[in-house]
Amino acid sequence: MSENLVMSVIDRNKERYLEEVMELLRIPSISALTQHRGDMRACAEWLRDRLLAIGLQRAEVMGTAGHPVVYGEWMHPEPGRLTVLVYGHYDVQPVDPVELWDSPPFEPQVREGRLYARGAADDKGQVHMHMAAVHALLSQGGELPVNLKFLIEGEEEMGSENLDEFIAANREMLACDAAVISDTSFFAAGVPSITYGLRGLTYMQIDVAGPSSDLHSGSFGGAVMNPAEAVARIITRLKDEHGRITVPGFYDEVRELTEREREEFRRLPFDETEYAESLGVPELWGEEGYSTLERVWTRPTLEVNGIWGGFAGEGSKTVIPAEAHAKISCRLAPYQDPDEIASLVEAHVQEVCPPGVRARVVRMHGGKPALVPLDHPVMGAASRAVERGFGKPPVFIREGGSIPVVATFDALLGVPTVLMGVGLPDENAHAPNEWLLLENYYNGIRSAAALYEELGCL
Amino acid sequence: MSENLVMSVIDRNKERYLEEVMELLRIPSISALTQHRGDMRACAEWLRDRLLAIGLQRAEVMGTAGHPVVYGEWMHPEPGRLTVLVYGHYDVQPVDPVELWDSPPFEPQVREGRLYARGAADDKGQVHMHMAAVHALLSQGGELPVNLKFLIEGEEEMGSENLDEFIAANREMLACDAAVISDTSFFAAGVPSITYGLRGLTYMQIDVAGPSSDLHSGSFGGAVMNPAEAVARIITRLKDEHGRITVPGFYDEVRELTEREREEFRRLPFDETEYAESLGVPELWGEEGYSTLERVWTRPTLEVNGIWGGFAGEGSKTVIPAEAHAKISCRLAPYQDPDEIASLVEAHVQEVCPPGVRARVVRMHGGKPALVPLDHPVMGAASRAVERGFGKPPVFIREGGSIPVVATFDALLGVPTVLMGVGLPDENAHAPNEWLLLENYYNGIRSAAALYEELGCL
Repeated sequence: MSENLVMSVIDRNKERYLEEVMELLRIPSISALTQHRGDMRACAEWLRDRLLAIGLQRAEVMGTAGHPVVYGEWMHPEPGRLTVLVYGHYDVQPVDPVELWDSPPFEPQVREGRLYARGAADDKGQVHMHMAAVHALLSQGGELPVNLKFLIEGEEEMGSENLDEFIAANREMLACDAAVISDTSFFAAGVPSITYGLRGLTYMQIDVAGPSSDLHSGSFGGAVMNPAEAVARIITRLKDEHGRITVPGFYDEVRELTEREREEFRRLPFDETEYAESLGVPELWGEEGYSTLERVWTRPTLEVNGIWGGFAGEGSKTVIPAEAHAKISCRLAPYQDPDEIASLVEAHVQEVCPPGVRARVVRMHGGKPALVPLDHPVMGAASRAVERGFGKPPVFIREGGSIPVVATFDALLGVPTVLMGVGLPDENAHAPNEWLLLENYYNGIRSAAALYEELGCL
Repeated sequence: MSENLVMSVIDRNKERYLEEVMELLRIPSISALTQHRGDMRACAEWLRDRLLAIGLQRAEVMGTAGHPVVYGEWMHPEPGRLTVLVYGHYDVQPVDPVELWDSPPFEPQVREGRLYARGAADDKGQVHMHMAAVHALLSQGGELPVNLKFLIEGEEEMGSENLDEFIAANREMLACDAAVISDTSFFAAGVPSITYGLRGLTYMQIDVAGPSSDLHSGSFGGAVMNPAEAVARIITRLKDEHGRITVPGFYDEVRELTEREREEFRRLPFDETEYAESLGVPELWGEEGYSTLERVWTRPTLEVNGIWGGFAGEGSKTVIPAEAHAKISCRLAPYQDPDEIASLVEAHVQEVCPPGVRARVVRMHGGKPALVPLDHPVMGAASRAVERGFGKPPVFIREGGSIPVVATFDALLGVPTVLMGVGLPDENAHAPNEWLLLENYYNGIRSAAALYEELGCL
């Protein structure tokens, strides 16, 4: 189908798509609350029915140990075509405090160009963009430029507990060449963005044990190493005063940014002073030699997530604690391995543990980083698709957190993932008055259709 | 009275004194429990009556905002005599868990040369030693070799909340040349000991504030200084790896031990390996250049009494805490001032506080150290008295903790305090089955009588 044709079909069907997405948003699919189990099922069935209605050859509600998964596919009879997997989720966050909503969370309303409803941005509204794109492409009696599969889960807001097992058990069904997710945000309003990198994570607990019971600091102060002091000493030996992690081997697999990447980040509208003010800190701080965006998006970190030991009540208690603890975690740059980093940290903790106490490192959990290099063909296709959808080229950004399913797609399906969301930073995704900019929703449908076309040309 | 005479009077009255101290121990004078308020009063009145019965010229139960104080005195009509103040306390610790007592806590029992009862060692048994000594000296129609005053409080086990105010309000009545307290312990069984030095204390809380709320460590890790890391960095900058406190000016007023003191400590029966094992630590640790006893008794310390910030629950939470805290305290060597040290630490905390966070130091409380130099005349008198009472010279030891009333006597009455207790390290002072060695009780009476005589000769 010619570019002009599909875009004009989308334009003609704007009202219809809006009505349809509002229908989807009316289903209170809150995965975390058991009283909504029926709504979850109803939402999955609505999606299945709708996937069939827009022309998919197969669509099913498939069981898991938790809420069901919706799967659908459109496969060209001729082999050899590129296959694209669209992932999204139909479950939403709870709505409390519901009294802070200006309109009821499950009664979608358009106000000032925004579509207000729980799930509008995260993620039912964005899932629906892809369904509308498929409708536009197939409704003219045509075919899709790629093989397309939909994987829409119902437990993303609960940590996707059963997803990895589902994907592992259905690898063949889900086999593809690339995955697409629209569940991320623009860098800022009016700045279409493609997220091409995510940090990984490895999380540990450090337990330091000293005397067999708490000691009176008067009678024993000066005789033994204090575990709370020891845990502080250990933490201080993990990172230097320039923000550089001092664990030997820590940076071995970390690659420097390309000049193009640094240039992309430098061009973004980012005000360090405003950012510091919004966080409430007197100044920003981090690894020397990198900008703030480079640090939070691309550089590995080591953070203390919690620390405790001894007396924390009101007043004073003159005690040498028997033990002290810290939760620490590293955000990982692409190519770092969570298990290897945990081993390095563990060895270093033992190395720097002061005399007179014993340290133990307990591994909690981890997740791999993800990166699709900017010169990867799918990135070029995504960039052109966003430009066609929004009328301007996207910026390429990364995210400091993780989207675990991206690492799962990489590990279990061996494919890169394009993160092409159209949310905005202040969309209230997990708060009252969640909204999606209608303009982004429509242009998101255009981008999705364009993406299938661009990928079909690779 | 000749030495032989008073000692023989004590010997003759052993049964009588034992019966009497058991009567005193039968009164359940638990200051912390309101249901024993009547017993507290009864105990104070028992002491008042007994002080009069043994020949004091004045004895009164005097009110405070809490439990009453018992005051008594014997003053020679001729001016110019040395005046000695005997301090003790008639309140005792609670008895829980009472089921662990082999005999009821307020039914005193002698087993294998030990007097078992709550308060036997801490402190009613030891208070009674002084009363028995006075009885022995006065019962022969003689007079005391010094002016003697008794100050027996009822709130020591609750922190002596009202004692300072009582002493300040009754300075003239309590005026004296030296104070004596028998509420300490021997270094070991069979090793009579005089405690001639106590450490002071200054206690602070460090509050570190970073971002205005907890931040997601994925989205923000690398952008800001982490308050939990900052508090660890601050703590690590307060002491070096040789156990030496790095706060500028901290050691300015600290005096080195004399060779005689080091020699006294070296001669004590102290096994470092056994001590480490009893504490459950893999090895002892502290300031280089000092023995363990020197460190805990005489050297100032800086200990972390508590540390907390961020997530301390089960599992993992990827958060950068908005704030973190530590309780720290310094034990002080003689001549160090709690307020001055707190000021030095506070300034240093500000100096070493990392960028990107704000630190605040809140002062909690403090207490002055105490020291009676070994060459002070009262120490010579006490040494001779203990030798006369126990048949061997005492060792001179110090204590790492504080006995706040000693600093109060120094500050408000301007007098040195002789700490001449006869407890033993395993006497269960605050635990079930508290006991006092009968032999120490009797020899303690002899030492008390000898002390008054020795002080009378100064």
